[in-house]
Amino acid sequence: MKLVPLGDRVVLKQLVAEETTKSGIVLPGQNKEKPQQAEVIAVGPGGVVDGKEVKMEVKVGDQVIYSKYAGTDVKLDDEEYIVVKQSDILAVIEA
Amino acid sequence: MKLVPLGDRVVLKQLVAEETTKSGIVLPGQNKEKPQQAEVIAVGPGGVVDGKEVKMEVKVGDQVIYSKYAGTDVKLDDEEYIVVKQSDILAVIEA
Amino acid sequence: MKLVPLGDRVVLKQLVAEETTKSGIVLPGQNKEKPQQAEVIAVGPGGVVDGKEVKMEVKVGDQVIYSKYAGTDVKLDDEEYIVVKQSDILAVIEA
Amino acid sequence: MKLVPLGDRVVLKQLVAEETTKSGIVLPGQNKEKPQQAEVIAVGPGGVVDGKEVKMEVKVGDQVIYSKYAGTDVKLDDEEYIVVKQSDILAVIEA
Amino acid sequence: MKLVPLGDRVVLKQLVAEETTKSGIVLPGQNKEKPQQAEVIAVGPGGVVDGKEVKMEVKVGDQVIYSKYAGTDVKLDDEEYIVVKQSDILAVIEA
Amino acid sequence: MKLVPLGDRVVLKQLVAEETTKSGIVLPGQNKEKPQQAEVIAVGPGGVVDGKEVKMEVKVGDQVIYSKYAGTDVKLDDEEYIVVKQSDILAVIEA
Amino acid sequence: MKLVPLGDRVVLKQLVAEETTKSGIVLPGQNKEKPQQAEVIAVGPGGVVDGKEVKMEVKVGDQVIYSKYAGTDVKLDDEEYIVVKQSDILAVIEA
Repeated sequence: MKLVPLGDRVVLKQLVAEETTKSGIVLPGQNKEKPQQAEVIAVGPGGVVDGKEVKMEVKVGDQVIYSKYAGTDVKLDDEEYIVVKQSDILAVIEA
Repeated sequence: MKLVPLGDRVVLKQLVAEETTKSGIVLPGQNKEKPQQAEVIAVGPGGVVDGKEVKMEVKVGDQVIYSKYAGTDVKLDDEEYIVVKQSDILAVIEA
Repeated sequence: MKLVPLGDRVVLKQLVAEETTKSGIVLPGQNKEKPQQAEVIAVGPGGVVDGKEVKMEVKVGDQVIYSKYAGTDVKLDDEEYIVVKQSDILAVIEA
Repeated sequence: MKLVPLGDRVVLKQLVAEETTKSGIVLPGQNKEKPQQAEVIAVGPGGVVDGKEVKMEVKVGDQVIYSKYAGTDVKLDDEEYIVVKQSDILAVIEA
Repeated sequence: MKLVPLGDRVVLKQLVAEETTKSGIVLPGQNKEKPQQAEVIAVGPGGVVDGKEVKMEVKVGDQVIYSKYAGTDVKLDDEEYIVVKQSDILAVIEA
Repeated sequence: MKLVPLGDRVVLKQLVAEETTKSGIVLPGQNKEKPQQAEVIAVGPGGVVDGKEVKMEVKVGDQVIYSKYAGTDVKLDDEEYIVVKQSDILAVIEA
Repeated sequence: MKLVPLGDRVVLKQLVAEETTKSGIVLPGQNKEKPQQAEVIAVGPGGVVDGKEVKMEVKVGDQVIYSKYAGTDVKLDDEEYIVVKQSDILAVIEA
């Protein structure tokens, strides 16, 4: 099963926070604040949304920073996703 | 009797949460959070809604994810439905 | 006396909740939640409302479902009515 | 002195609630809820209000139902009036 | 010094409440509620305000009724004025 | 260093409240309420702001009255300024 | 890694508050209020944002004053940034 977002919506998958010490030991559960980095999993078609033309600027695979309180958590096949509007994506992270 | 939604409204029927263990035993009453998956039962005609042209993108039979706090619960002939605006539908689930 | 609604307003008369057991005994006063089903009594002319063109889609005699917290209760000649905007009508019930 | 409303405003005079028993005895002070019926005393010119064209639909002498919490109470020459926007008038009462 | 209002703003001077008994004795301090009658002292040029064309309808010297909670109190040369937007003026009082 | 405001913003410098008695003695600290008079220090270019064309009407050196709760206090080189949108300026004071 | 802002967003890096006495001694930790001065690190492309054309006016390297409560804090590679909309930038500081 996969999620096909409508309008200007984007499906994100939160990146696992890098909770690893320099020596390589993973320290789970320390990252209390919800990380805002996520990967784009699916992108809606854009078009006229709420009477306004929206052009989609992000693409599948983009690493993005999204607004802390935005979006809806969705669980599908035991995977958790966040569905946001593109306007809740602040920036793309380029390597 | 059937519900014919007006404007950009969509009638949804919540999917029964799959509360079944791997061995096939149904565990009712465990899913406390309201599931956000629903099936589209009827779709409004769209057109000009609140001064803005809305094109309907979902169709009867679609499995959809909708916004957690959206919509109005409606009971008709002892069946419960949720009437939402299409903009409250986040994504279609494709098999 | 009759109510002639202005703009995109619609006058509704709440349907008496069918509080009848299968054997036909009426059980008044059990339906605590305000029923959302109503009949359309009068329909405004539509036209430009708040700067937006509104086309009236419901007609007198329609059975409708309306938004739970919408509308204004009005008493005229000891009859109670609800005046709503058409956008507060969610769906028409077809037999 | 008279009130000449601006824009889409309408001056109303609340109708005295008909607190009369069938035998003709007036029972003052029983009508605790503010009656929503009023007579139109003066009508603004309409035109462009807040950037939107408003056409006045009510006329002096109309009996109207207006929205319960709308309007501003105004006292002039010991007479009390309510000044509302036309959009706060729900319906005209026709005899 | 004088106040020259910008845009759709209007400078008002509150009328002294007529706290005089029929025999002509002035009873100061009895009028606890802020009177809503005022005289227009200066009128802004109108024009495009917040993206909307506003035509000024009141003129200097008009006696007006304004919305109870509107406007900003301004003190200049020990005189107190109220600066309101024209849309906060409900009606002009004609003699 | 100087502040160059963007869009429809205006940099103001609050006028020192004239806390001087008639005999010329300055009484500092008595003026508890924040004075609303200010001098225009810099004016943004105007243009399209939030999708609306804004024409700047004030100029550097103008004495203005601004809305009591508007604007952002800014400190630069130990001088305090207020940055407001032009629409928060109520009136220009002319001598 | 670098942040590439979308739409009308701007990535800022807060300037270290100049907590230095005149004799040159740095006094860290005294500046309790969050400084509003920042340097522009990256500028979105502008274009149509929420249905309105936005032209970017700031450029990388600009020293700016931004609205106190605006923006989202973002941490990337142990550096902290603030992502704001251009409309939250009040003024550019020119030397």
